[in-house]
Amino acid sequence: MTDLNRLKQQISFCARGDLWEQVPRFLQDLHPADLAEIIADAPPEAQGPIFEQIDDELKPDVLVELEGAAEENVLRSLSSEEISDFVEDMAPDDAADILGEVEERSQEILELMEEEESGDVRELLQYEEDTAGGIMTTDFVAVRNTITAGEAVEYIASLELDEPFYYAYVVDREDRLVGWVELWDLLKPSNRNKRVVDLVEHDAIPVHVSTDQEEAARVAAKYDLSSLPVLDEENRLVGRITMDDLLDVIQEEASEDLFKFAGSNESELEYDSPLRACRARLPWLLITLATGFLSSVILKHFIAQITTAEVLSLSFFVPIIMAMGGNTGIQSSTLIIRGLAVGTVRNQKILKLLSREIIAGALMGICCGLIIGLWAKLMIDRTVTDAMAFSTFYLSFTVGIALFAAMSFAAVFGALAPILLDRSKADPAVASGPFVTASNDVIALIIYYLVTLLMLAMHG
Amino acid sequence: MTDLNRLKQQISFCARGDLWEQVPRFLQDLHPADLAEIIADAPPEAQGPIFEQIDDELKPDVLVELEGAAEENVLRSLSSEEISDFVEDMAPDDAADILGEVEERSQEILELMEEEESGDVRELLQYEEDTAGGIMTTDFVAVRNTITAGEAVEYIASLELDEPFYYAYVVDREDRLVGWVELWDLLKPSNRNKRVVDLVEHDAIPVHVSTDQEEAARVAAKYDLSSLPVLDEENRLVGRITMDDLLDVIQEEASEDLFKFAGSNESELEYDSPLRACRARLPWLLITLATGFLSSVILKHFIAQITTAEVLSLSFFVPIIMAMGGNTGIQSSTLIIRGLAVGTVRNQKILKLLSREIIAGALMGICCGLIIGLWAKLMIDRTVTDAMAFSTFYLSFTVGIALFAAMSFAAVFGALAPILLDRSKADPAVASGPFVTASNDVIALIIYYLVTLLMLAMHG
Repeated sequence: MTDLNRLKQQISFCARGDLWEQVPRFLQDLHPADLAEIIADAPPEAQGPIFEQIDDELKPDVLVELEGAAEENVLRSLSSEEISDFVEDMAPDDAADILGEVEERSQEILELMEEEESGDVRELLQYEEDTAGGIMTTDFVAVRNTITAGEAVEYIASLELDEPFYYAYVVDREDRLVGWVELWDLLKPSNRNKRVVDLVEHDAIPVHVSTDQEEAARVAAKYDLSSLPVLDEENRLVGRITMDDLLDVIQEEASEDLFKFAGSNESELEYDSPLRACRARLPWLLITLATGFLSSVILKHFIAQITTAEVLSLSFFVPIIMAMGGNTGIQSSTLIIRGLAVGTVRNQKILKLLSREIIAGALMGICCGLIIGLWAKLMIDRTVTDAMAFSTFYLSFTVGIALFAAMSFAAVFGALAPILLDRSKADPAVASGPFVTASNDVIALIIYYLVTLLMLAMHG
Repeated sequence: MTDLNRLKQQISFCARGDLWEQVPRFLQDLHPADLAEIIADAPPEAQGPIFEQIDDELKPDVLVELEGAAEENVLRSLSSEEISDFVEDMAPDDAADILGEVEERSQEILELMEEEESGDVRELLQYEEDTAGGIMTTDFVAVRNTITAGEAVEYIASLELDEPFYYAYVVDREDRLVGWVELWDLLKPSNRNKRVVDLVEHDAIPVHVSTDQEEAARVAAKYDLSSLPVLDEENRLVGRITMDDLLDVIQEEASEDLFKFAGSNESELEYDSPLRACRARLPWLLITLATGFLSSVILKHFIAQITTAEVLSLSFFVPIIMAMGGNTGIQSSTLIIRGLAVGTVRNQKILKLLSREIIAGALMGICCGLIIGLWAKLMIDRTVTDAMAFSTFYLSFTVGIALFAAMSFAAVFGALAPILLDRSKADPAVASGPFVTASNDVIALIIYYLVTLLMLAMHG
């Protein structure tokens, strides 16, 4: 890693002085992923020139590894002819991704490509980006179910492929997927004369071109598959999703959930501009602001109800009650959202989970309610000097009850929101976003307000 | 999936009535991952009995797939003899994981195992759980660098292994890793007479037994490796990490970050009890509560400074300012934390990132400050009826300036906290946890308080 950092500095130095003749000798021995990292960390104006210095043979691999702003910059520095040359050397799914990035020029580039290569890419471009079809590649190894393992190995070897593969997919006469066998299993001498169909250990798992990419990643993770076959509507094998793309989907989904949580989006990871950060974040902050307006109105009414200094002291606890309500809600939402993402929250368990949240919320509410009550007793004791209409004990009790009510409600609401969103086919992660969090805050304030009014009225 | 759900209902029905003779015929055709899911979704008391019904041959695979409470329940229902039988049929890393779960009985079980099997497991048990050594398996295929591809294929086939593998690791005379070749590449007829060392496309990447598991997963993801070789201190090959374990690490890390964010921990995903939820969440809520105490003290002093109704109206905006400060900080922290996790935030970029956060925070602060100023003008206008010491314009301006200051500060603090934690070798994700979030809230309140005092004093 340290070597890579030193190299980055050297290359930045060369880029500043335009001393390109000093670079090439150490660049060509690097892994394309390292070269992509060097380019991504270089100043934007040097990214095109550094890419230029790389061996032509390595360029397609490096281009595949680039993403975000660095990818845009390098592609902008290339002519359509160059891009079409690089893209021809890529796996069809990578080629389709690059063409997706240069939308305006994609037709032109496709026409510059050899027909054989462009056909596959055109086919892939027709699928939605976030479906199994959108991330699959059309390169795969398929064998007919009737041949023997020995024949299969001979056939596969004769293909002289240059993309990694680990499974041979077994198809019937109509190209429908029967299942698959692992390459290493085909090699065993004891299997040589068995028919491949008898070696199939994995049944076909129905992932279709239109299956959501997240669902596809979940299936692959659940069944520990290194690559996932993809079927068309007639259950014919049309492609496979490779591990690197599945990993990207899993990483992407985790980033997405975390950024939704914070009120932003994961594109921020790939771009450096502050304006882009504002564009991603400001809408969510404005939602928080709008809910905040509501809280200021409620607080205004709250304070307007207050006639004596002793009751005014209840307003000291507004921030705590809001924060505790908000946090309790976030904890419940997180459990459900992540559980839905990794597949541990399933239909059968929802009632069980909700009842668990109610109990947990109430237990934590009792505990925190007691503590805040004691604290309130201390705080109010020291404040109040004028004639007392309410005992400090009664006011502290009010604060404790209000916190208990706010937390119990927040635990249930926090769990329910993502479940309802998921049911209505929306993204449950939105439930952890600023909108629901801010709602939780405001609801906690309303509960505090109502409990206080009720308790004060009851006393009178 | 629907089929699986129906099956779960049927099995629950059988479990309730103890009608086990009705179950076996559909159970044996399922994938171990599906069987594990069925067990996990069954009531706790039925989990042992359902496992009992599974074919003995499938049991080890199902046991590997189980996790959390379901795994505990099933293991509790098994005798040490049974566990030792199942564990012998597992890959050494899976066996070590199971033994880690039954700590008190692990010595006993190891002694019941065949010596050959227990040796590997004992070796693996000595590594820390969250290191490369802790998740690697000792099963791998290694070939000497001097043999030909044809010889290698013959040798590999003769091993008749039963664990999946995709690479042959190439080692020198001293068992030091030279690199690796892909199995499918060895098969090509055109490579048959080449020496394997000449086919090595991937150089050795130094992942050692003591490397942190997250770092190992990052390396595998960066270089798109389906399995990662692990070296000892003398750079000898001692094991490999398989894709399923790498995936688990990536999923785990994403869950961990999200749960730290919310103030809880990812063990919640695997256990259903509300008490366990309280144990995971309550400590964080207590931190929020403690910081809340601080905010109540500050607010008390704030309100004590207030002499007129017009200045009291400034307290309406306390919740907004706190929420906006908190959220802005979360957004910055999230970017850095996730960037550190997926590797897009690297040393070179930190100054650039910080300056980006300062600019973004200030821009968003100006924008939101303006809006809240206008809102405050509206709110205060309608409130104040008594003699005016300050114009409503001046008070609204105060609110706007305070929000701007709070947001700018929060953006920088939010970005700085995870960077500093990472530098001091702590987990940066803690920076998004309730502690830092609550600090952000309180700091926003302090800034509001100070700005208000300053503005009011300046006016006088």
